[in-house]
Amino acid sequence: MNFHTRKWVKPEDLNPNASLFGGRLLEWIDEEAALYSIIQLENPRCVTKYMSEINFISSAKQGDIIEIGIVATHFGHTSLTLACEVRNKMTRQTIIKIDKIVMVSLDEEGNPTPHGKTKIEYTKDRFEQKK
Amino acid sequence: MNFHTRKWVKPEDLNPNASLFGGRLLEWIDEEAALYSIIQLENPRCVTKYMSEINFISSAKQGDIIEIGIVATHFGHTSLTLACEVRNKMTRQTIIKIDKIVMVSLDEEGNPTPHGKTKIEYTKDRFEQKK
Amino acid sequence: MNFHTRKWVKPEDLNPNASLFGGRLLEWIDEEAALYSIIQLENPRCVTKYMSEINFISSAKQGDIIEIGIVATHFGHTSLTLACEVRNKMTRQTIIKIDKIVMVSLDEEGNPTPHGKTKIEYTKDRFEQKK
Amino acid sequence: MNFHTRKWVKPEDLNPNASLFGGRLLEWIDEEAALYSIIQLENPRCVTKYMSEINFISSAKQGDIIEIGIVATHFGHTSLTLACEVRNKMTRQTIIKIDKIVMVSLDEEGNPTPHGKTKIEYTKDRFEQKK
Amino acid sequence: MNFHTRKWVKPEDLNPNASLFGGRLLEWIDEEAALYSIIQLENPRCVTKYMSEINFISSAKQGDIIEIGIVATHFGHTSLTLACEVRNKMTRQTIIKIDKIVMVSLDEEGNPTPHGKTKIEYTKDRFEQKK
Amino acid sequence: MNFHTRKWVKPEDLNPNASLFGGRLLEWIDEEAALYSIIQLENPRCVTKYMSEINFISSAKQGDIIEIGIVATHFGHTSLTLACEVRNKMTRQTIIKIDKIVMVSLDEEGNPTPHGKTKIEYTKDRFEQKK
Repeated sequence: MNFHTRKWVKPEDLNPNASLFGGRLLEWIDEEAALYSIIQLENPRCVTKYMSEINFISSAKQGDIIEIGIVATHFGHTSLTLACEVRNKMTRQTIIKIDKIVMVSLDEEGNPTPHGKTKIEYTKDRFEQKK
Repeated sequence: MNFHTRKWVKPEDLNPNASLFGGRLLEWIDEEAALYSIIQLENPRCVTKYMSEINFISSAKQGDIIEIGIVATHFGHTSLTLACEVRNKMTRQTIIKIDKIVMVSLDEEGNPTPHGKTKIEYTKDRFEQKK
Repeated sequence: MNFHTRKWVKPEDLNPNASLFGGRLLEWIDEEAALYSIIQLENPRCVTKYMSEINFISSAKQGDIIEIGIVATHFGHTSLTLACEVRNKMTRQTIIKIDKIVMVSLDEEGNPTPHGKTKIEYTKDRFEQKK
Repeated sequence: MNFHTRKWVKPEDLNPNASLFGGRLLEWIDEEAALYSIIQLENPRCVTKYMSEINFISSAKQGDIIEIGIVATHFGHTSLTLACEVRNKMTRQTIIKIDKIVMVSLDEEGNPTPHGKTKIEYTKDRFEQKK
Repeated sequence: MNFHTRKWVKPEDLNPNASLFGGRLLEWIDEEAALYSIIQLENPRCVTKYMSEINFISSAKQGDIIEIGIVATHFGHTSLTLACEVRNKMTRQTIIKIDKIVMVSLDEEGNPTPHGKTKIEYTKDRFEQKK
Repeated sequence: MNFHTRKWVKPEDLNPNASLFGGRLLEWIDEEAALYSIIQLENPRCVTKYMSEINFISSAKQGDIIEIGIVATHFGHTSLTLACEVRNKMTRQTIIKIDKIVMVSLDEEGNPTPHGKTKIEYTKDRFEQKK
């Protein structure tokens, strides 16, 4: 699993108990899942269809740096299944884990459409080949 | 299940495909779960510990009004289990459903603490009795 | 008056003196008035035309839960008049009161248009009858 | 009346009908009233106590530039009364007018405290004299 | 240089070290530069093309009031060059200085277009003359 | 240069001309520079002191995915100099380039303090060695 996007926990991200607001964290994860799918499926219309159970293992506090890891675990016909882990960048402690996030590739009318992908293609390689 | 909080889907809540950004929706649900727990457990320190699987059944678009329903389904020793449904206020179409959201009651040091509650107590009644 | 929408006062809602920022509160009220009108008038194009004087009776602090109550007090030809009260969910203390908020129903060109409503119709009833 | 602060109406400031969200406008006005009071009363603890009726005269759309004018109209013992007008910077059309905004000066315990001011003192002059 | 727009440093504007988040400050400056250009060039399509080096001279803390000054220093064929200074409204201490911000006037296709302006025209005068 | 953090350009990130708001982009860069420094210097108190000139080479539009690259170019006594490039994740087109961002390491009183670092230490290695 590669950890790309990093977030700096700022006052605007806290709940009233001064720890990272869980809703903000879910928002960050959903954005990362969407953009990961868009990159892999080369389709800007990717939506979240399903998330498996979510364990909030530890929290984060103001000033912490967290990083969000996503990896594709299964390529369906119109879907892409991801796994996600969020952890503290400095301590490596896991904050949240989601085993399955199912993203669906849509056509312009918003209906599921085959994406034609079967494995992770690194954007870098894809880019080089197209050149 | 009572539906209390309502949201008006504004441009700032959309994903780039012009439908309601799933992450924003999860953020709204997490806030509603937290404040529902705070009211029921009479403890301002309630955190999200677990969410069961999440199905994104339908979406919402700019200008839609959605309402968030929460109900307590189980009172544990230090925890409270909730069920959640979000639906379109006008069409009654379900947008998202989460069977189990487990909230935990914390003490001032951030450790789980017994909340002493065993059933839903409507704040209204509680308030009247305390008067 | 029914109190529906609830808000959890988070760090991002505070003014620099650490109490609820009045502007944020007015923003919440205006959104609630808009969506209440949309529901009652069954017209998504409802705009705020007038607010009567506003008394800031008490404040709120981080972690407080507030609830926003709205009730229709008069149905005009193209307008709808509302009353609003915001209070602390736990203590029932009134935070703000606005006697009159006049909303206007607009057509697609943005001109006032008759809404044809004369009394509060609960969405629930309306929904059931349409089925 | 001097018009200082200017805002550029961005997508995040719109309501779902694509005009400036009234709640956002009220938020901007409340911030401007607070900082104007802080400057005049030389006290960082100034809170909004009252607003007289508000007429939403015209609206604004994406890309418009608006400017917010505030002037002190009365210096009370612990209060300061302001008048406010918001207008479109390019067309000069009035968007909103509020005749009276009463701000109160607080001490460190949050109680009203005499501010000792009786007239508008331009910060510039005040600054020069103190030098 | 005229200082127009003022900002009140609120909790949502802080970095985790409790001083004004530099990114927020840059966001405020960029907005002010854009709207200043739109007013002077009478063209709503003005974009930032270049900023000269930026010195963060001092910081600001929660509750501070800052003001943003902009002045046009050069009118090019399709561009407008600005200078910017941000300072603490109460203490007059400079927070940031940018010698050159180059804005470009675009046509509807997004290409640079001559703006036909050669000097600062105060909107007030321009408005009066057009009446 | 490693590109870590990715952003999905959403409606809330646009300027009124429907392209990525430059101020938002600068905000993202400043956050990334701060957290990169915190990780390398192992000091949570890192502030932006200086940015060299900024060229806005191309823009981004709604739905684009951008990635932010940062690399340390010089370790001073109390400072760390970074270079930054932001590009479109799919097309690899450069959006913005900043040759020098100087970050300063502060002690608890907010004064510059030696950080003791002389080269990039990958957090991964650092973590492994500490185990």
